[in-house]
Amino acid sequence: MVFLHTAYCLLLTNGFPRCGGATIAAQNDKKLSYIPGFHAVRESLVKTPEKIMEIWVGVSRKGARAEEIARLGAEKGVPVQFRELQEIEAVVPGAAHQGFVALAETFSYTDLEDLIEMSHQAPGGALLVVADHITDEGNLGALIRTAAFFGVHGLILPKDRSAKITGKLLKRTSGAYASLPIAQVVNLGRTLDVLSRKGFWVIGAAGEAQETIHHFDWDRDLVLVLGSESKGLSHSVRERCHALVKIPGSGQVESLNVSVAGGVILSEVLRQRASKRK
Amino acid sequence: MVFLHTAYCLLLTNGFPRCGGATIAAQNDKKLSYIPGFHAVRESLVKTPEKIMEIWVGVSRKGARAEEIARLGAEKGVPVQFRELQEIEAVVPGAAHQGFVALAETFSYTDLEDLIEMSHQAPGGALLVVADHITDEGNLGALIRTAAFFGVHGLILPKDRSAKITGKLLKRTSGAYASLPIAQVVNLGRTLDVLSRKGFWVIGAAGEAQETIHHFDWDRDLVLVLGSESKGLSHSVRERCHALVKIPGSGQVESLNVSVAGGVILSEVLRQRASKRK
Repeated sequence: MVFLHTAYCLLLTNGFPRCGGATIAAQNDKKLSYIPGFHAVRESLVKTPEKIMEIWVGVSRKGARAEEIARLGAEKGVPVQFRELQEIEAVVPGAAHQGFVALAETFSYTDLEDLIEMSHQAPGGALLVVADHITDEGNLGALIRTAAFFGVHGLILPKDRSAKITGKLLKRTSGAYASLPIAQVVNLGRTLDVLSRKGFWVIGAAGEAQETIHHFDWDRDLVLVLGSESKGLSHSVRERCHALVKIPGSGQVESLNVSVAGGVILSEVLRQRASKRK
Repeated sequence: MVFLHTAYCLLLTNGFPRCGGATIAAQNDKKLSYIPGFHAVRESLVKTPEKIMEIWVGVSRKGARAEEIARLGAEKGVPVQFRELQEIEAVVPGAAHQGFVALAETFSYTDLEDLIEMSHQAPGGALLVVADHITDEGNLGALIRTAAFFGVHGLILPKDRSAKITGKLLKRTSGAYASLPIAQVVNLGRTLDVLSRKGFWVIGAAGEAQETIHHFDWDRDLVLVLGSESKGLSHSVRERCHALVKIPGSGQVESLNVSVAGGVILSEVLRQRASKRK
C-alpha cells in the first residue's frame, strides 16, 4: 500500500479555541502525505485519485512518463503542477522521487463525546447537524461549508451509506471544513438516543411537516437532522425526531438541495436566538 | 449545421397560470429536437454535447459505430440508451436514422418586459432575482432550483460572462426551471436602471454590508442581486443598488455558495411578507 509504506507525513492540527471560547482537544486533523516516485504517483492516481490533492512533476521531466501523469491527472480531475526539482526534494528529502510527487490528504474524525461536550459548553445553545445518509459528495461538501458558515458546533455522519470525506470533497468546502468538527458514527438511531438523553432536541427537516421553521422555537439545545434529497429522512431517524419542520415555499417545486435547506434553517435558528438575546 | 437542417421538433410550452393567478404568454419554452443518423449524432456529441440530453441506439446495433457512440457518450456525460428500432422510427419517422438518434433540448428565454409585468401583477409584492455574472454551471442550476422553490417571479441573466442555459444545466435544476421564467439581457446596469424606474428596489447581497437580511424590510417590490462567489457584485451593479445586505453567520467562514445565500435571503423575504399579511 502506497499510503502506508512510502508516505511522508506532516500533521497540521487546527486546535484553535472556537465556539465563543470553548476549546476541544480533538479538532479535525488535516494530514498531508507526500508520495514520491513515478510508479507510486501513477498507482495512487489510478487507484485512489480521490485522496490526491495535487501532483508535482519536476520541470525537467518532459518524456512519456510526465505525459502519462499529466493525462491521468486531467482524467481523474487532479491538478498537475510543474515544480523545480529542489522544491520536490525539499518535501521528500532523500527519497527516490524521480521528479514525481503526489500530495495526498487524509482526514481524522472528531470523537462524538468531544463534539457533544463542546456543543454544550458553547454559549447560546448547542447546535449540531446530522447528515442522514447523504451519498452525493458535492451535496455533503456544500453542507459542510454551509454548517461552518453558520457556526454549527459539529456535524455527525453515519459510517455506511454516506459520502466519504475525501480530498476532493474537502476541496469543495472551500476550506470551511477546518472550522467544523465532524464525527462518524456506526448507528445513527442509537446516536440520536444518546443525544436525546443528553438533553438535545432532535429536529428533522421534512417537506410534509405541518410546523414551519419560522413558527418552531429554536432556542434550545438541538440537533438538526437533514435527509437526502431523494429519500428524505430514514425511518429509524424519523421515529426519533421530537419535531418535524418544513421550509415554506411557493409549492411549485417540491424540494431544495440539502445544503440550501440546511442554510435556510440554520439562518432561522441564528435569527431567533439573536432576537431572544436582545 | 445539424441542429438546423435535420432536427425534428416537438414544442412543449409550459404556459400555465402561476404567481397567484397571473398568466404570461412568454413562459420558458422547452423544445425537444430529435437528431437522426450516426454521423449527425457523433457530430453533435463532439461539438455540442451540452445540448444533448440523451442518445438512443437501436438494440440490434452492436458494431464499432455503437461502441464509438457509447464511448463518446460516457466521455461527454451524455446517457446512451439502447432502444427498439420501432421506438427510434416513431420519433424520426421516415428519416435515415441508421439506428441512432440524439435527443437535444433547446431553451427559449422570456422577454424582460413580460417578466416585469408579470412580477408587478403578482400579489404580495414583486420579487425578481439577478444573477450577476455567475459563470459556474452547477451554481446557476442550483440557484434556478432555489429561486423556483421560493416562487421568485423571474431570473435575469447577463448575456456575457454568465453560465449558459444548457441541457446539462437544466437537468441539474431537477425540473425546477419549468416554474421560473428566465430573461437574458445585454447590459445588466441598464436593466437595473429600467427596473429602478419601474419602482423596483435593487438590493444586493454583500458580505461586507452593515445591514442584515433580518433587519432589512423586504415588504416592497424588489430585485435581489446575487454576485459570483469569487468576485462578488460587479462594480456597475453595486453602484445601482439601493441597499446592500448581509447574511449573519459565525464569522469563521467568509462566504456561502450562491444558491445557499439566495435560499437564505428568499426565505427571509417570504417570512417577512407572510408575517405582515397576518
